[in-house]
Amino acid sequence: MEKLSIIKIGGNIIEDEASLNTFLQLFANLEGHKILVHGGGKRATLIASKLGINSKLIDGRRITDAETLEVITMVYGGLVNKNIVAKLQALNIDALGLTGADINSIQSVKRPIQKIDYGFVGDVKQIASSSIDKLIQANFTPVFCAITHDKKGQLLNTNADTIANTIAAGMSRIYDTSIYYCFELNGVLQDFNDKESVIKHINAESYKELLEKGIISDGMIPKIDNCFDALQNGVQKVYIGNTAMLTKENNNFTTITL
Amino acid sequence: MEKLSIIKIGGNIIEDEASLNTFLQLFANLEGHKILVHGGGKRATLIASKLGINSKLIDGRRITDAETLEVITMVYGGLVNKNIVAKLQALNIDALGLTGADINSIQSVKRPIQKIDYGFVGDVKQIASSSIDKLIQANFTPVFCAITHDKKGQLLNTNADTIANTIAAGMSRIYDTSIYYCFELNGVLQDFNDKESVIKHINAESYKELLEKGIISDGMIPKIDNCFDALQNGVQKVYIGNTAMLTKENNNFTTITL
Repeated sequence: MEKLSIIKIGGNIIEDEASLNTFLQLFANLEGHKILVHGGGKRATLIASKLGINSKLIDGRRITDAETLEVITMVYGGLVNKNIVAKLQALNIDALGLTGADINSIQSVKRPIQKIDYGFVGDVKQIASSSIDKLIQANFTPVFCAITHDKKGQLLNTNADTIANTIAAGMSRIYDTSIYYCFELNGVLQDFNDKESVIKHINAESYKELLEKGIISDGMIPKIDNCFDALQNGVQKVYIGNTAMLTKENNNFTTITL
Repeated sequence: MEKLSIIKIGGNIIEDEASLNTFLQLFANLEGHKILVHGGGKRATLIASKLGINSKLIDGRRITDAETLEVITMVYGGLVNKNIVAKLQALNIDALGLTGADINSIQSVKRPIQKIDYGFVGDVKQIASSSIDKLIQANFTPVFCAITHDKKGQLLNTNADTIANTIAAGMSRIYDTSIYYCFELNGVLQDFNDKESVIKHINAESYKELLEKGIISDGMIPKIDNCFDALQNGVQKVYIGNTAMLTKENNNFTTITL
Protein backbone atom coordinates (compact mmCIF):
# COMPACT_ATOMS: atom_id res chain seq x y z
CA MET A 1 0.00 0.00 0.00
CA GLU A 2 1.25 3.46 -0.88
CA LYS A 3 1.42 6.07 1.87
CA LEU A 4 -0.88 9.08 2.22
CA SER A 5 -0.48 11.91 4.72
CA ILE A 6 -3.43 14.08 5.73
CA ILE A 7 -2.29 17.35 7.33
CA LYS A 8 -4.76 19.52 9.21
CA ILE A 9 -3.97 23.12 10.11
CA GLY A 10 -6.03 25.53 12.16
CA GLY A 11 -6.59 29.22 12.58
CA ASN A 12 -3.30 29.94 14.37
CA ILE A 13 -1.36 29.10 11.19
CA ILE A 14 -3.79 30.56 8.66
CA GLU A 15 -4.12 33.93 10.37
CA ASP A 16 -0.42 34.67 10.39
CA GLU A 17 1.11 35.15 6.91
CA ALA A 18 4.64 34.21 8.05
CA SER A 19 3.46 31.05 9.86
CA LEU A 20 1.39 30.06 6.85
CA ASN A 21 4.32 30.51 4.46
CA THR A 22 6.65 28.51 6.72
CA PHE A 23 4.08 25.75 7.03
CA LEU A 24 3.40 25.61 3.28
CA GLN A 25 7.11 25.18 2.60
CA LEU A 26 7.21 22.25 5.06
CA PHE A 27 4.08 20.82 3.45
CA ALA A 28 5.60 21.18 -0.02
CA ASN A 29 8.75 19.36 1.11
CA LEU A 30 6.78 16.45 2.53
CA GLU A 31 7.35 13.31 0.44
CA GLY A 32 4.60 11.12 -0.97
CA HIS A 33 0.88 11.64 -1.51
CA LYS A 34 -0.67 14.28 0.70
CA ILE A 35 -3.88 16.14 1.41
CA LEU A 36 -4.22 19.46 3.26
CA VAL A 37 -7.27 20.28 5.38
CA HIS A 38 -7.62 23.78 6.75
CA GLY A 39 -9.96 25.47 9.19
CA GLY A 40 -11.01 29.04 8.82
CA GLY A 41 -9.84 30.99 11.80
CA LYS A 42 -11.10 34.32 12.99
CA ARG A 43 -11.10 35.93 9.56
CA ALA A 44 -14.68 34.83 8.91
CA THR A 45 -15.84 36.37 12.20
CA LEU A 46 -14.00 39.59 11.36
CA ILE A 47 -15.50 39.87 7.87
CA ALA A 48 -18.96 38.90 9.17
CA SER A 49 -18.79 41.70 11.73
CA LYS A 50 -17.65 44.18 9.04
CA LEU A 51 -20.70 43.10 7.02
CA GLY A 52 -22.88 43.74 10.06
CA ILE A 53 -23.55 40.05 10.72
CA ASN A 54 -23.28 39.19 14.38
CA SER A 55 -22.05 35.76 15.36
CA LYS A 56 -24.86 34.03 17.16
CA LEU A 57 -23.98 31.81 20.09
CA ILE A 58 -26.34 29.52 21.99
CA ASP A 59 -24.92 27.90 25.15
CA GLY A 60 -21.48 28.97 23.95
CA ARG A 61 -21.93 27.17 20.61
CA ARG A 62 -21.70 29.10 17.34
CA ILE A 63 -24.82 29.02 15.17
CA THR A 64 -24.44 29.02 11.39
CA ASP A 65 -27.37 30.99 10.03
CA ALA A 66 -27.78 31.63 6.27
CA GLU A 67 -25.77 34.88 6.36
CA THR A 68 -22.95 33.31 8.38
CA LEU A 69 -22.81 30.39 5.93
CA GLU A 70 -22.37 32.88 3.07
CA VAL A 71 -19.43 34.48 4.86
CA ILE A 72 -17.90 31.07 5.61
CA THR A 73 -18.28 30.07 1.95
CA MET A 74 -16.59 33.32 0.89
CA VAL A 75 -13.76 33.22 3.42
CA TYR A 76 -12.97 29.50 3.79
CA GLY A 77 -13.93 28.35 0.27
CA GLY A 78 -12.71 31.48 -1.51
CA LEU A 79 -10.20 33.73 0.20
CA VAL A 80 -8.32 31.26 2.42
CA ASN A 81 -8.53 28.19 0.18
CA LYS A 82 -7.59 29.86 -3.11
CA ASN A 83 -4.70 31.82 -1.61
CA ILE A 84 -3.28 28.60 -0.15
CA VAL A 85 -3.64 26.93 -3.56
CA ALA A 86 -1.86 29.84 -5.31
CA LYS A 87 0.96 29.77 -2.74
CA LEU A 88 1.38 25.99 -3.16
CA GLN A 89 1.46 26.36 -6.94
CA ALA A 90 4.33 28.82 -6.48
CA LEU A 91 6.11 26.02 -4.55
CA ASN A 92 5.50 23.65 -7.49
CA ILE A 93 2.81 21.66 -5.71
CA ASP A 94 -0.03 21.01 -8.16
CA ALA A 95 -2.69 21.96 -5.60
CA LEU A 96 -6.44 21.87 -6.10
CA GLY A 97 -8.82 23.54 -3.65
CA LEU A 98 -12.04 21.79 -2.72
CA THR A 99 -15.14 21.96 -0.59
CA GLY A 100 -17.07 18.78 0.07
CA ALA A 101 -19.41 19.75 -2.79
CA ASP A 102 -16.58 19.55 -5.34
CA ILE A 103 -16.54 16.07 -6.94
CA ASN A 104 -19.13 15.27 -4.20
CA SER A 105 -16.08 14.57 -2.04
CA ILE A 106 -17.71 14.99 1.38
CA GLN A 107 -21.43 14.53 1.73
CA SER A 108 -23.06 15.44 5.02
CA VAL A 109 -26.49 15.79 6.59
CA LYS A 110 -27.74 18.97 8.20
CA ARG A 111 -27.51 18.43 11.92
CA PRO A 112 -30.99 17.56 13.23
CA ILE A 113 -32.52 20.10 15.59
CA GLN A 114 -32.58 18.72 19.12
CA LYS A 115 -31.94 21.06 22.03
CA ILE A 116 -30.14 23.53 19.80
CA ASP A 117 -30.68 24.45 16.15
CA TYR A 118 -27.09 24.80 14.92
CA GLY A 119 -28.33 26.07 11.56
CA PHE A 120 -26.36 25.16 8.42
CA VAL A 121 -23.99 22.69 10.07
CA GLY A 122 -23.29 19.33 8.47
CA ASP A 123 -22.44 16.01 10.09
CA VAL A 124 -20.33 14.00 7.65
CA LYS A 125 -22.13 11.06 6.05
CA GLN A 126 -19.74 9.80 3.37
CA ILE A 127 -16.47 10.43 1.59
CA ALA A 128 -16.02 9.85 -2.16
CA SER A 129 -12.73 7.98 -1.69
CA SER A 130 -12.40 6.81 -5.27
CA SER A 131 -13.08 10.29 -6.70
CA ILE A 132 -10.52 11.81 -4.31
CA ASP A 133 -8.12 9.04 -5.36
CA LYS A 134 -8.52 10.02 -9.03
CA LEU A 135 -7.12 13.44 -8.11
CA ILE A 136 -4.24 11.91 -6.17
CA GLN A 137 -3.44 9.49 -8.99
CA ALA A 138 -3.40 12.47 -11.39
CA ASN A 139 -0.70 13.96 -9.12
CA PHE A 140 -2.93 16.75 -7.87
CA THR A 141 -2.71 17.71 -4.20
CA PRO A 142 -6.20 18.25 -2.71
CA VAL A 143 -6.64 21.20 -0.33
CA PHE A 144 -9.91 20.93 1.59
CA CYS A 145 -11.67 23.70 3.46
CA ALA A 146 -14.21 22.98 6.19
CA ILE A 147 -17.35 23.08 4.04
CA THR A 148 -19.46 20.08 3.00
CA HIS A 149 -22.78 19.68 1.18
CA ASP A 150 -25.97 17.64 1.42
CA LYS A 151 -26.11 16.63 -2.31
CA LYS A 152 -29.39 18.56 -2.50
CA GLY A 153 -27.75 21.89 -3.33
CA GLN A 154 -27.04 23.05 0.22
CA LEU A 155 -23.53 23.86 1.45
CA LEU A 156 -22.92 23.11 5.15
CA ASN A 157 -20.37 24.29 7.70
CA THR A 158 -18.38 21.36 9.12
CA ASN A 159 -15.66 20.98 11.74
CA ALA A 160 -12.20 20.77 10.08
CA ASP A 161 -10.90 18.11 12.52
CA THR A 162 -13.86 15.92 11.62
CA ILE A 163 -13.19 16.47 7.92
CA ALA A 164 -9.52 15.47 8.28
CA ASN A 165 -10.61 12.46 10.28
CA THR A 166 -13.27 11.17 7.93
CA ILE A 167 -11.20 11.76 4.78
CA ALA A 168 -8.36 9.81 6.43
CA ALA A 169 -10.69 6.97 7.42
CA GLY A 170 -12.17 6.85 3.90
CA MET A 171 -8.78 6.91 2.18
CA SER A 172 -7.31 4.24 4.49
CA ARG A 173 -9.03 1.60 2.36
CA ILE A 174 -6.72 2.63 -0.51
CA TYR A 175 -3.62 3.99 1.27
CA ASP A 176 -1.54 3.47 4.38
CA THR A 177 -2.91 6.71 5.86
CA SER A 178 -1.59 8.97 8.63
CA ILE A 179 -3.05 12.19 10.03
CA TYR A 180 -0.97 15.13 11.25
CA TYR A 181 -2.98 17.47 13.47
CA CYS A 182 -1.00 20.71 13.62
CA PHE A 183 -1.82 23.07 16.48
CA GLU A 184 -0.04 25.64 18.64
CA LEU A 185 1.45 23.21 21.18
CA ASN A 186 4.32 20.76 20.73
CA GLY A 187 1.98 17.87 21.36
CA VAL A 188 -0.25 16.45 24.09
CA LEU A 189 1.32 17.67 27.35
CA GLN A 190 1.95 15.80 30.59
CA ASP A 191 1.85 19.13 32.44
CA PHE A 192 0.02 21.98 30.76
CA ASN A 193 2.33 24.54 32.42
CA ASP A 194 5.41 22.89 30.91
CA LYS A 195 5.18 23.27 27.13
CA GLU A 196 8.08 20.82 26.69
CA SER A 197 6.44 17.97 28.63
CA VAL A 198 5.22 16.23 25.49
CA ILE A 199 3.73 12.76 25.87
CA LYS A 200 5.55 11.05 23.00
CA HIS A 201 3.26 8.10 22.55
CA ILE A 202 -0.34 7.38 23.45
CA ASN A 203 -2.21 4.15 22.79
CA ALA A 204 -5.68 3.00 23.81
CA GLU A 205 -4.36 1.58 27.08
CA SER A 206 -2.22 4.53 28.14
CA TYR A 207 -5.00 6.94 27.10
CA LYS A 208 -7.32 5.29 29.64
CA GLU A 209 -4.71 5.83 32.35
CA LEU A 210 -4.08 9.45 31.32
CA LEU A 211 -7.82 10.11 31.53
CA GLU A 212 -8.12 8.44 34.94
CA LYS A 213 -5.22 10.46 36.32
CA GLY A 214 -6.78 13.64 34.92
CA ILE A 215 -3.63 14.40 32.88
CA ILE A 216 -5.71 14.72 29.72
CA SER A 217 -8.79 16.81 30.28
CA ASP A 218 -11.15 19.42 28.89
CA GLY A 219 -10.74 20.41 25.23
CA MET A 220 -8.07 17.76 24.61
CA ILE A 221 -10.50 14.87 25.24
CA PRO A 222 -12.74 15.29 22.14
CA LYS A 223 -9.58 15.89 20.05
CA ILE A 224 -8.02 12.59 21.14
CA ASP A 225 -11.33 10.69 21.04
CA ASN A 226 -11.48 11.88 17.43
CA CYS A 227 -8.00 10.41 16.82
CA PHE A 228 -8.99 7.01 18.21
CA ASP A 229 -12.10 7.12 16.04
CA ALA A 230 -9.85 7.54 12.99
CA LEU A 231 -7.53 4.74 14.15
CA GLN A 232 -10.47 2.40 14.71
CA ASN A 233 -11.59 3.21 11.17
CA GLY A 234 -8.37 2.08 9.56
CA VAL A 235 -6.00 5.06 9.90
CA GLN A 236 -2.47 3.85 10.72
CA LYS A 237 -1.11 6.66 12.88
CA VAL A 238 -2.16 10.05 14.19
CA TYR A 239 0.39 12.72 15.03
CA ILE A 240 -0.35 15.79 17.16
CA GLY A 241 2.08 18.69 17.46
CA ASN A 242 3.13 21.98 15.95
CA THR A 243 4.07 22.25 12.28
CA ALA A 244 7.73 21.49 13.04
CA MET A 245 6.72 17.82 13.36
CA LEU A 246 6.68 17.76 9.55
CA THR A 247 10.49 18.14 9.52
CA LYS A 248 12.55 15.00 9.82
CA GLU A 249 14.82 16.53 12.48
CA ASN A 250 12.03 17.07 14.99
CA ASN A 251 10.72 14.21 17.10
CA ASN A 252 9.09 16.22 19.89
CA PHE A 253 5.42 15.53 19.19
CA THR A 254 2.73 13.03 20.16
CA THR A 255 2.12 9.84 18.18
CA ILE A 256 -1.18 8.07 18.75
CA THR A 257 -1.78 4.46 17.79
CA LEU A 258 -4.35 1.87 18.81
CA MET B 1 -12.30 13.62 -31.81
CA GLU B 2 -14.78 13.74 -28.93
CA LYS B 3 -16.88 16.86 -28.49
CA LEU B 4 -16.45 19.43 -25.72
CA SER B 5 -18.79 22.34 -25.01
CA ILE B 6 -17.61 25.40 -23.10
CA ILE B 7 -20.52 27.42 -21.73
CA LYS B 8 -19.98 30.95 -20.45
CA ILE B 9 -22.58 32.72 -18.34
CA GLY B 10 -22.52 36.26 -17.06
CA GLY B 11 -23.91 38.37 -14.25
CA ASN B 12 -27.48 38.49 -15.58
CA ILE B 13 -27.88 34.75 -14.95
CA ILE B 14 -25.86 34.50 -11.75
CA GLU B 15 -27.62 37.34 -9.98
CA ASP B 16 -31.10 35.92 -10.38
CA GLU B 17 -31.68 32.67 -8.45
CA ALA B 18 -34.50 31.51 -10.77
CA SER B 19 -32.50 32.21 -13.96
CA LEU B 20 -29.50 30.43 -12.49
CA ASN B 21 -31.54 27.36 -11.55
CA THR B 22 -33.17 27.22 -15.00
CA PHE B 23 -29.77 27.56 -16.68
CA LEU B 24 -28.14 24.90 -14.49
CA GLN B 25 -30.90 22.43 -15.42
CA LEU B 26 -30.22 23.13 -19.13
CA PHE B 27 -26.49 22.77 -18.53
CA ALA B 28 -27.04 19.48 -16.68
CA ASN B 29 -29.13 18.13 -19.59
CA LEU B 30 -26.46 18.99 -22.14
CA GLU B 31 -24.90 15.85 -23.58
CA GLY B 32 -21.18 15.16 -23.82
CA HIS B 33 -18.17 16.70 -22.10
CA LYS B 34 -18.70 20.24 -20.85
CA ILE B 35 -17.06 23.07 -18.94
CA LEU B 36 -18.82 26.00 -17.28
CA VAL B 37 -17.21 29.43 -17.03
CA HIS B 38 -18.94 32.09 -14.96
CA GLY B 39 -18.42 35.77 -14.39
CA GLY B 40 -19.13 37.42 -11.10
CA GLY B 41 -21.81 40.00 -11.56
CA LYS B 42 -22.63 42.86 -9.29
CA ARG B 43 -22.49 40.84 -6.10
CA ALA B 44 -18.79 41.57 -5.65
CA THR B 45 -19.40 45.32 -5.99
CA LEU B 46 -22.25 45.10 -3.47
CA ILE B 47 -20.20 43.18 -0.90
CA ALA B 48 -17.19 45.46 -1.47
CA SER B 49 -19.30 48.50 -0.77
CA LYS B 50 -20.71 46.87 2.40
CA LEU B 51 -17.12 46.30 3.49
CA GLY B 52 -16.39 49.96 2.87
CA ILE B 53 -14.26 49.30 -0.23
CA ASN B 54 -15.05 51.71 -3.03
CA SER B 55 -14.73 50.54 -6.61
CA LYS B 56 -11.98 52.58 -8.20
CA LEU B 57 -12.43 53.59 -11.81
CA ILE B 58 -9.85 55.26 -14.05
CA ASP B 59 -11.12 56.44 -17.45
CA GLY B 60 -14.21 54.30 -16.84
CA ARG B 61 -12.13 51.16 -16.29
CA ARG B 62 -12.39 49.26 -13.01
CA ILE B 63 -9.15 48.96 -11.04
CA THR B 64 -8.51 45.80 -9.02
CA ASP B 65 -6.60 46.91 -5.93
CA ALA B 66 -5.58 44.41 -3.22
CA GLU B 67 -8.80 44.85 -1.24
CA THR B 68 -10.98 44.46 -4.35
CA LEU B 69 -9.07 41.30 -5.32
CA GLU B 70 -9.86 39.86 -1.86
CA VAL B 71 -13.55 40.52 -2.39
CA ILE B 72 -13.44 39.01 -5.90
CA THR B 73 -11.69 35.92 -4.52
CA MET B 74 -14.35 35.59 -1.82
CA VAL B 75 -17.35 36.21 -4.07
CA TYR B 76 -16.34 34.62 -7.42
CA GLY B 77 -14.08 31.85 -6.07
CA GLY B 78 -16.11 31.12 -2.92
CA LEU B 79 -19.74 32.20 -2.80
CA VAL B 80 -20.74 32.04 -6.48
CA ASN B 81 -18.53 29.14 -7.59
CA LYS B 82 -19.23 26.81 -4.67
CA ASN B 83 -22.98 27.41 -4.74
CA ILE B 84 -23.04 26.58 -8.46
CA VAL B 85 -21.05 23.40 -7.75
CA ALA B 86 -23.45 22.37 -4.95
CA LYS B 87 -26.47 23.01 -7.20
CA LEU B 88 -24.93 20.96 -10.04
CA GLN B 89 -24.17 18.10 -7.66
CA ALA B 90 -27.87 18.11 -6.73
CA LEU B 91 -28.55 17.64 -10.48
CA ASN B 92 -26.15 14.67 -10.53
CA ILE B 93 -23.41 16.54 -12.39
CA ASP B 94 -20.07 15.72 -10.76
CA ALA B 95 -18.95 19.35 -10.76
CA LEU B 96 -15.62 20.70 -9.55
CA GLY B 97 -15.07 24.42 -8.98
CA LEU B 98 -11.77 25.97 -10.04
CA THR B 99 -9.82 29.16 -10.27
CA GLY B 100 -6.84 29.30 -12.64
CA ALA B 101 -4.60 28.57 -9.64
CA ASP B 102 -6.20 25.16 -9.12
CA ILE B 103 -4.17 22.48 -10.96
CA ASN B 104 -2.36 25.51 -12.43
CA SER B 105 -5.14 25.50 -15.00
CA ILE B 106 -4.87 29.12 -16.16
CA GLN B 107 -1.62 30.97 -15.75
CA SER B 108 -1.57 34.68 -16.45
CA VAL B 109 0.74 37.67 -16.16
CA LYS B 110 -0.14 40.79 -14.21
CA ARG B 111 -1.06 43.40 -16.80
CA PRO B 112 1.94 45.72 -17.32
CA ILE B 113 1.42 49.32 -16.24
CA GLN B 114 1.17 51.56 -19.30
CA LYS B 115 -1.23 54.49 -19.26
CA ILE B 116 -3.32 52.88 -16.54
CA ASP B 117 -2.33 50.64 -13.63
CA TYR B 118 -5.20 48.12 -13.62
CA GLY B 119 -3.89 46.57 -10.41
CA PHE B 120 -4.26 42.84 -9.88
CA VAL B 121 -5.54 42.00 -13.35
CA GLY B 122 -4.13 39.05 -15.26
CA ASP B 123 -3.69 38.58 -19.00
CA VAL B 124 -3.86 34.87 -19.78
CA LYS B 125 -0.54 33.28 -20.71
CA GLN B 126 -1.24 29.55 -20.82
CA ILE B 127 -3.82 26.86 -20.20
CA ALA B 128 -2.92 23.48 -18.67
CA SER B 129 -4.95 21.53 -21.25
CA SER B 130 -3.71 18.10 -20.24
CA SER B 131 -4.41 18.71 -16.55
CA ILE B 132 -7.90 19.97 -17.37
CA ASP B 133 -8.34 16.91 -19.58
CA LYS B 134 -7.49 14.62 -16.65
CA LEU B 135 -10.53 16.05 -14.86
CA ILE B 136 -12.75 15.58 -17.90
CA GLN B 137 -11.53 12.02 -18.41
CA ALA B 138 -12.33 11.33 -14.75
CA ASN B 139 -15.91 12.44 -15.58
CA PHE B 140 -15.68 15.58 -13.50
CA THR B 141 -17.30 18.75 -14.87
CA PRO B 142 -15.02 21.78 -14.36
CA VAL B 143 -16.67 25.05 -13.27
CA PHE B 144 -14.30 27.99 -13.70
CA CYS B 145 -14.63 31.41 -12.10
CA ALA B 146 -12.87 34.45 -13.54
CA ILE B 147 -9.70 34.29 -11.43
CA THR B 148 -6.25 33.27 -12.64
CA HIS B 149 -2.77 33.25 -11.03
CA ASP B 150 0.79 34.12 -11.92
CA LYS B 151 2.38 30.86 -10.60
CA LYS B 152 4.28 33.04 -8.11
CA GLY B 153 1.54 32.95 -5.48
CA GLN B 154 -0.55 35.87 -6.74
CA LEU B 155 -4.20 35.51 -7.73
CA LEU B 156 -5.34 37.82 -10.54
CA ASN B 157 -8.72 39.08 -11.73
CA THR B 158 -9.37 38.08 -15.35
CA ASN B 159 -12.19 38.68 -17.83
CA ALA B 160 -14.54 35.68 -17.97
CA ASP B 161 -15.02 35.88 -21.78
CA THR B 162 -11.25 35.69 -22.21
CA ILE B 163 -11.11 32.71 -19.88
CA ALA B 164 -13.81 30.85 -21.85
CA ASN B 165 -11.98 31.72 -25.02
CA THR B 166 -8.52 30.61 -24.01
CA ILE B 167 -9.72 27.41 -22.33
CA ALA B 168 -11.62 26.57 -25.53
CA ALA B 169 -8.57 27.31 -27.71
CA GLY B 170 -6.35 25.20 -25.44
CA MET B 171 -8.78 22.27 -25.32
CA SER B 172 -9.36 22.31 -29.09
CA ARG B 173 -6.10 20.39 -29.51
CA ILE B 174 -7.77 17.47 -27.70
CA TYR B 175 -11.49 17.93 -28.44
CA ASP B 176 -13.82 19.17 -31.16
CA THR B 177 -14.61 22.28 -29.09
CA SER B 178 -17.51 24.75 -29.22
CA ILE B 179 -18.17 27.82 -27.10
CA TYR B 180 -21.62 28.98 -26.03
CA TYR B 181 -21.63 32.61 -24.91
CA CYS B 182 -24.88 33.10 -22.99
CA PHE B 183 -26.06 36.67 -22.54
CA GLU B 184 -29.32 38.57 -22.19
CA LEU B 185 -30.11 38.86 -25.93
CA ASN B 186 -31.27 36.17 -28.35
CA GLY B 187 -28.11 36.62 -30.37
CA VAL B 188 -26.27 39.22 -32.42
CA LEU B 189 -29.03 41.52 -33.70
CA GLN B 190 -29.54 43.00 -37.15
CA ASP B 191 -31.52 45.83 -35.55
CA PHE B 192 -30.87 46.55 -31.89
CA ASN B 193 -34.46 47.77 -31.43
CA ASP B 194 -35.87 44.47 -32.68
CA LYS B 195 -34.86 41.77 -30.21
CA GLU B 196 -36.04 39.07 -32.64
CA SER B 197 -33.82 40.21 -35.54
CA VAL B 198 -31.14 37.63 -34.81
CA ILE B 199 -28.34 37.24 -37.35
CA LYS B 200 -28.31 33.44 -37.57
CA HIS B 201 -24.86 33.00 -39.03
CA ILE B 202 -21.72 35.12 -39.14
CA ASN B 203 -18.45 34.17 -40.79
CA ALA B 204 -15.27 36.16 -41.39
CA GLU B 205 -16.58 37.52 -44.68
CA SER B 206 -20.05 38.54 -43.51
CA TYR B 207 -18.56 40.01 -40.31
CA LYS B 208 -16.51 42.42 -42.43
CA GLU B 209 -19.69 43.52 -44.21
CA LEU B 210 -21.65 43.89 -40.96
CA LEU B 211 -18.87 46.08 -39.57
CA GLU B 212 -18.72 48.22 -42.72
CA LYS B 213 -22.49 48.75 -42.68
CA GLY B 214 -22.31 49.67 -38.98
CA ILE B 215 -24.78 46.91 -38.07
CA ILE B 216 -22.34 45.54 -35.50
CA SER B 217 -20.90 48.29 -33.36
CA ASP B 218 -19.76 49.37 -29.91
CA GLY B 219 -19.64 46.71 -27.20
CA MET B 220 -20.44 43.89 -29.61
CA ILE B 221 -17.21 44.36 -31.60
CA PRO B 222 -14.71 43.16 -28.94
CA LYS B 223 -17.09 40.27 -28.11
CA ILE B 224 -17.12 39.06 -31.73
CA ASP B 225 -13.42 39.78 -32.29
CA ASN B 226 -12.90 37.50 -29.29
CA CYS B 227 -14.97 34.79 -31.01
CA PHE B 228 -12.89 34.96 -34.19
CA ASP B 229 -9.75 34.78 -32.05
CA ALA B 230 -11.05 31.50 -30.61
CA LEU B 231 -11.97 30.18 -34.07
CA GLN B 232 -8.54 31.08 -35.43
CA ASN B 233 -7.04 29.15 -32.51
CA GLY B 234 -8.80 25.90 -33.35
CA VAL B 235 -12.27 26.26 -31.84
CA GLN B 236 -14.90 24.74 -34.18
CA LYS B 237 -17.94 26.91 -33.55
CA VAL B 238 -19.00 29.80 -31.36
CA TYR B 239 -22.63 30.33 -30.40
CA ILE B 240 -24.04 33.59 -29.01
CA GLY B 241 -27.52 33.83 -27.53
CA ASN B 242 -29.55 33.46 -24.39
CA THR B 243 -29.50 30.26 -22.36
CA ALA B 244 -32.44 28.82 -24.36
CA MET B 245 -29.93 28.08 -27.15
CA LEU B 246 -28.87 25.09 -25.04
CA THR B 247 -32.22 23.42 -25.70
CA LYS B 248 -32.57 21.38 -28.89
CA GLU B 249 -35.90 23.01 -29.78
CA ASN B 250 -34.46 26.51 -30.04
CA ASN B 251 -32.56 27.65 -33.13
CA ASN B 252 -32.89 31.41 -32.68
CA PHE B 253 -29.30 32.34 -31.88
CA THR B 254 -26.11 33.36 -33.67
CA THR B 255 -23.57 30.82 -34.89
CA ILE B 256 -20.11 32.11 -35.72
CA THR B 257 -17.64 30.19 -37.86
CA LEU B 258 -14.53 31.16 -39.77
